[in-house]
Amino acid sequence: MYWEDFPPHHVTDCGSTTVSREAILDFARQFDPQPFHVDEEAAKHSLFGGLVASGWHTCAIAMRLMCDAYLLRTTSQGAPGIDELRWLKPVRPGDTLSLRMTVLEARPMRSKPHLGLVQSRWELFNQHGDCALTMKGWGMFKRRDVAAADGLQAQAAP
Amino acid sequence: MYWEDFPPHHVTDCGSTTVSREAILDFARQFDPQPFHVDEEAAKHSLFGGLVASGWHTCAIAMRLMCDAYLLRTTSQGAPGIDELRWLKPVRPGDTLSLRMTVLEARPMRSKPHLGLVQSRWELFNQHGDCALTMKGWGMFKRRDVAAADGLQAQAAP
Repeated sequence: MYWEDFPPHHVTDCGSTTVSREAILDFARQFDPQPFHVDEEAAKHSLFGGLVASGWHTCAIAMRLMCDAYLLRTTSQGAPGIDELRWLKPVRPGDTLSLRMTVLEARPMRSKPHLGLVQSRWELFNQHGDCALTMKGWGMFKRRDVAAADGLQAQAAP
Repeated sequence: MYWEDFPPHHVTDCGSTTVSREAILDFARQFDPQPFHVDEEAAKHSLFGGLVASGWHTCAIAMRLMCDAYLLRTTSQGAPGIDELRWLKPVRPGDTLSLRMTVLEARPMRSKPHLGLVQSRWELFNQHGDCALTMKGWGMFKRRDVAAADGLQAQAAP
């Protein structure tokens, strides 16, 4: 899948995954050991009323869903950044999260003409249909038309 | 540390950490198994020219630096979101990353009067002084003045 395969309004449902208490604790102990991510008792007395996943864990879970759904079959060349990331609802042990990706914009890169940029809206829903996480992310993909042109050039070379 | 302890322009240097090849591979295998994050050979032929950390791993590393430097000693109540996250330079095995946090804005929360919002600029530098990651993040903290008022109310109660 090349840049051309991600036109504006293109929607991909990326499947779902269930988040275990152990996964929440493992991630948080390593990267984000705030009490409401690592301590069940302290979490009860926090704003969240119970243990919740680190926001960065939630982002990483969404990333994995995207990888498994389609990203690993693309010419992805990485991502320059993210805008308007919002953790709208806490993610709790046992939650089942599903990701929907919607292409907002696609344009060739000026600085790297063989690549194109795709801006997508990420929406991660829980089992109640609440959107727990949303963001707008840019990705870079190889362009099919340039790959084809490269092919012709290679054929023409001695 | 309460909301009042994070006035605009307040800067915190959050120390540094070195990222191992194993840590890059572990995170990527779990959350972001794109070839340039998990496959040394494939990474050589990518835009990056070698193995690089997942962008989400880089964010998680910055989070841990902030936790260890000061966040765990605060009244942090979580974070509603992030703006303008940019992965400016790849993070490679052996890189030493240091985080600087600068308060941009601080204001009381309208919806939760006992909390205040703090917007900070995150800047994660590598050992060459290049900024590898930057973002603007909002955090929520308890307000000292409201905590004090609560204390007086508790004393006045029968």
